[in-house]
Amino acid sequence: MVVIMKPGFTPEQLQQAIRTMEAGGVKVMVSKGSETTILGAEGNAAGINQEELSLLPGVDRVMRVTEPYKKANRKYHPDDSLVDLGGGALVGGKRLAVIAGPCSVESEAQIVGVAKAVQAAGAAALRGGAFKPRTSPYAFQGMGNDGIRLLQEARAVTGLPIVTEIMSTDNVEMFEMCVDVIQVGARNMQNFDLLKQLGKTTKPILLKRGLSSTIEEWLMSAEYIMAGGNERVILCERGIRTFETFTRNTLDLSAVLAVKQLSHLPVVVDPSHACGKAWMVEKMSLAAVAAGADGLIIEVHNDPPHALCDGAQSITPDQFAGLMEQLRALAPCVGREL
Amino acid sequence: MVVIMKPGFTPEQLQQAIRTMEAGGVKVMVSKGSETTILGAEGNAAGINQEELSLLPGVDRVMRVTEPYKKANRKYHPDDSLVDLGGGALVGGKRLAVIAGPCSVESEAQIVGVAKAVQAAGAAALRGGAFKPRTSPYAFQGMGNDGIRLLQEARAVTGLPIVTEIMSTDNVEMFEMCVDVIQVGARNMQNFDLLKQLGKTTKPILLKRGLSSTIEEWLMSAEYIMAGGNERVILCERGIRTFETFTRNTLDLSAVLAVKQLSHLPVVVDPSHACGKAWMVEKMSLAAVAAGADGLIIEVHNDPPHALCDGAQSITPDQFAGLMEQLRALAPCVGREL
Amino acid sequence: MVVIMKPGFTPEQLQQAIRTMEAGGVKVMVSKGSETTILGAEGNAAGINQEELSLLPGVDRVMRVTEPYKKANRKYHPDDSLVDLGGGALVGGKRLAVIAGPCSVESEAQIVGVAKAVQAAGAAALRGGAFKPRTSPYAFQGMGNDGIRLLQEARAVTGLPIVTEIMSTDNVEMFEMCVDVIQVGARNMQNFDLLKQLGKTTKPILLKRGLSSTIEEWLMSAEYIMAGGNERVILCERGIRTFETFTRNTLDLSAVLAVKQLSHLPVVVDPSHACGKAWMVEKMSLAAVAAGADGLIIEVHNDPPHALCDGAQSITPDQFAGLMEQLRALAPCVGREL
Amino acid sequence: MVVIMKPGFTPEQLQQAIRTMEAGGVKVMVSKGSETTILGAEGNAAGINQEELSLLPGVDRVMRVTEPYKKANRKYHPDDSLVDLGGGALVGGKRLAVIAGPCSVESEAQIVGVAKAVQAAGAAALRGGAFKPRTSPYAFQGMGNDGIRLLQEARAVTGLPIVTEIMSTDNVEMFEMCVDVIQVGARNMQNFDLLKQLGKTTKPILLKRGLSSTIEEWLMSAEYIMAGGNERVILCERGIRTFETFTRNTLDLSAVLAVKQLSHLPVVVDPSHACGKAWMVEKMSLAAVAAGADGLIIEVHNDPPHALCDGAQSITPDQFAGLMEQLRALAPCVGREL
Repeated sequence: MVVIMKPGFTPEQLQQAIRTMEAGGVKVMVSKGSETTILGAEGNAAGINQEELSLLPGVDRVMRVTEPYKKANRKYHPDDSLVDLGGGALVGGKRLAVIAGPCSVESEAQIVGVAKAVQAAGAAALRGGAFKPRTSPYAFQGMGNDGIRLLQEARAVTGLPIVTEIMSTDNVEMFEMCVDVIQVGARNMQNFDLLKQLGKTTKPILLKRGLSSTIEEWLMSAEYIMAGGNERVILCERGIRTFETFTRNTLDLSAVLAVKQLSHLPVVVDPSHACGKAWMVEKMSLAAVAAGADGLIIEVHNDPPHALCDGAQSITPDQFAGLMEQLRALAPCVGREL
Repeated sequence: MVVIMKPGFTPEQLQQAIRTMEAGGVKVMVSKGSETTILGAEGNAAGINQEELSLLPGVDRVMRVTEPYKKANRKYHPDDSLVDLGGGALVGGKRLAVIAGPCSVESEAQIVGVAKAVQAAGAAALRGGAFKPRTSPYAFQGMGNDGIRLLQEARAVTGLPIVTEIMSTDNVEMFEMCVDVIQVGARNMQNFDLLKQLGKTTKPILLKRGLSSTIEEWLMSAEYIMAGGNERVILCERGIRTFETFTRNTLDLSAVLAVKQLSHLPVVVDPSHACGKAWMVEKMSLAAVAAGADGLIIEVHNDPPHALCDGAQSITPDQFAGLMEQLRALAPCVGREL
Repeated sequence: MVVIMKPGFTPEQLQQAIRTMEAGGVKVMVSKGSETTILGAEGNAAGINQEELSLLPGVDRVMRVTEPYKKANRKYHPDDSLVDLGGGALVGGKRLAVIAGPCSVESEAQIVGVAKAVQAAGAAALRGGAFKPRTSPYAFQGMGNDGIRLLQEARAVTGLPIVTEIMSTDNVEMFEMCVDVIQVGARNMQNFDLLKQLGKTTKPILLKRGLSSTIEEWLMSAEYIMAGGNERVILCERGIRTFETFTRNTLDLSAVLAVKQLSHLPVVVDPSHACGKAWMVEKMSLAAVAAGADGLIIEVHNDPPHALCDGAQSITPDQFAGLMEQLRALAPCVGREL
Repeated sequence: MVVIMKPGFTPEQLQQAIRTMEAGGVKVMVSKGSETTILGAEGNAAGINQEELSLLPGVDRVMRVTEPYKKANRKYHPDDSLVDLGGGALVGGKRLAVIAGPCSVESEAQIVGVAKAVQAAGAAALRGGAFKPRTSPYAFQGMGNDGIRLLQEARAVTGLPIVTEIMSTDNVEMFEMCVDVIQVGARNMQNFDLLKQLGKTTKPILLKRGLSSTIEEWLMSAEYIMAGGNERVILCERGIRTFETFTRNTLDLSAVLAVKQLSHLPVVVDPSHACGKAWMVEKMSLAAVAAGADGLIIEVHNDPPHALCDGAQSITPDQFAGLMEQLRALAPCVGREL
């Protein structure tokens, strides 16, 4: 921790700042610059009341110098974490994990059909929404419990683990019983009550980055889950909100590199939601893998024009198979395999 | 609804687009520009499958021309809505409604003391957090149910209605029984499950704008609550996330004007969270009222340096009383009173 | 200056960092925290090669703790600066300075007519564009030199100082001779070559904030002009670019408070360009003054629907007169006069 | 062009809107929806006074449906444009063009040394700044004309075409004589005066995207140059400004796909300025090529810790050679070669 004093601080103010720091159990070093005096804490600064310190007269500001996340921090866990999606499909290692499926579960024929198709193309897991977060209350809200049942059927047929989004704490218990990977959507990334409850489950959590979440806030949300006891967190970059409106969001691939440096958790990329345009999915998937993503989550629909949700960003099973071929060719160039 | 055809569309593609629109129950007008052909729907376009239409070959894009919110829309409710905070304190009329209190409830002495002070200065309601959304799982999370009890005590002493944030659907029933105004925080603005449940309650909802929510998304979240049956929604502008980091967020006062034109709902402003600096609160409060806000929600703490949360943005009861004096002087200049 | 060492740095790396700092002429204080070791500079850190230091092995990052602007900094010039717009009309003191006029000069009748009208309503200066920065090369680019001549005529008739935008270094000499206040537009805020040349002129410079400029970058652009010898800089907040598209830009009124704390320079607000909608100008002008702006710059056009530029955000002379009445009433509530 | 009428418009207002459109030389189609009436222009809408139309009573808004750029538009030039950097090195075709070199030219030994190294690794051109846009007036501003001379020497030795940034219209003539590719920096993307003058030159222009420029604004700036007669424009994505501060900017790789769909111009990516961190350059370069970029521009410095500018984001010649090896392996996976 570093404390910057205001210009013109008095000796009493300096003493008060030092006392407040010492009360937190540290030894204080004083550096008097020509324009600025700074105080450094020698020892463990965790016990210092930072808010109080920052509001003392004569104190300009208090700068934190260590990351606020611990369990998610690579410093305390240098090796990459591998997370099992279910049935042994790992994400975070050399092999890329591609999760694919429709935005929404719509019928048995649809979800089982798509599941078979993406499995044939090499997908590691099946995605599909049963509970849908929609901006409009008048839009299709998902099939709910029936959607979960159809996902289970698709799993029974293909063996693929199923990934689906949770929207309510009421469903945590049911999701833990029924699904393989619980997805937290971008809009719920700071639904702390939900994160806490997921911290008590044993299922992997796919944690999407919020629309305007900094990398640090995203890792802090992972920390919420991990602090509760569940360390099986998979991060998912899905685009951030910027001034640009040509794409639905702006895919931030440098965030993949950032979180892999800051954290040991695996990270996958969702090009479908990031771009909002099916024709962009292929190239942005290749770019994501080239940037170092551990996997992808891609919207695949048997009949995009008639999809009940997000058809514009869904690719067809044939396009998905073509994409997987390209990924298979590109992966070795970046030390990966598929 | 307007459909823009791609350059080089075929006559068959045009016919298919027209048929898809007609299947939705409208008559279609075709305008052939020198570069672009557009189709307009004559009649009620609600029955058209917009996603399907937009994905037809030859169709470039589909533009919506009506707002997607209905109950929140001023077009269908030209008069300003007034919402009773409890005990007859209205927000949305000529009289400004100022809600004040600490970020967190910390003790009986604290909350009752602050309540008395803000009441004496003219506040219409008491705010105070019992369940706190904190970025870090290791930060103070609020007193929970005990906090609610202390707020009730402060209400018993002062008669002020109490406003507090809900973080979990588990608490909806309890909040409906115990508090006067239920606040939805910025991070939960698109927690649709929570919004739906609040739509079934009878208490006014203070709906904060999300950190990166457009005005339309904010009104759509209000629509979620209203569509459920609860039309007592108060909007709250609290700053949006931008590239600027000097302030915690960027207070968007033009949004006050925008929502008051687009919607009949009352809107209040939270300068404390927007700026994150106590010394900015006074002037930004005056600016908010000058811009046309129906009220304010302000963090007031008896001892900011020792606040358990957000001390840096809290003003003292004395500063609050001074601010109220200034608001009282300025209000008549913009046709208001306090 | 504060240097944060990486975890696991070696004693040699620490010594190298210390030597590099000492080579810059400072004494170094070392604070060993439980997780982090930091180095503080005692003395004047200006001589340290910060880039080199930050790239040394073992060094995590170097944090600057003093502002990089000097002449614009309030620390070295505690009193508010007053700038004379010409003819004794000061900006930065108790009296508000309102600059008004059309987006573009279009004809003698238009500019003289508007000049008389805004003067009658109490404007301190006349604005009008002769050289226009337009996104499209096919849009009206302004009357150029003829526009400057018409502005001079309007000045001759009314005595109002004239404010107009410069777009090219080729025009610096001519502007210095012909106009009273030289405006630097948002898109040229970091046209450093232009800033340097304006630093050698003797005319006041109205420096608009760039669309995505931080407050520090804005002050650094002011510093460019001041470092050249021209300290007569007026800052102008005109909205920043954010994700919100309802308004043309997002007016950041908290920036007014920020720059007035960080700098001694006067600051005016342009609600016309910020909002892009004429119906928002009145209320946002009142809000700007309530927030502490030293003045306003407002687009006024005799016939907005037929304006050659920006008609949608221009108010009429009658509306301007009404706004001035309201400002006259509100100003005393915030310690100002008009 | 589409005109949306306000609810409750009168028949006279409708007639006035139609007349205004017809005065522009088009036939008008009227579509009466249940909630909204829209007008479509049949014929060439270019003659309509859109501003006037949008401000008519009864008119809600006017929506443009065609892109405002013509020469840069792929619709009128379906084939990819190839631009010769000088000496036959093309950008925009199958072969990737990698431009590399230091942020600033610092000495003959430095620039010639780096030029030889990047040529040996396969670079198509040499970059190096002689005139530097620096946020601070007190920072190193480049060697100026001497820097240009040293770049010419490096070209004489290696044969590599030279790419360098122009900051002032005063230098247009000299740049046209001395350099091969003229770079317009992000901060000057809307320095329209400069763009116009570059439109009269015969040298290729590398046009960087502004920090907060939309894709449309970027293409409009290209249009400025092309409208002047110089169609040899190379677009350069270099990161946009967002709320995220971990990286210097946020590299928007989806913009590469967007401009390649909207325009025929070649596009290269600058990962160095986008990320601001040398350790990110390799992976983001691979990602850019995977996304479809036609080339890269990369900062390479012989001794990054002692660079006079941007050392933190510069890679060494050895790292550059390693990156080129990786690009050579990856290129064929996306139909390219190096």
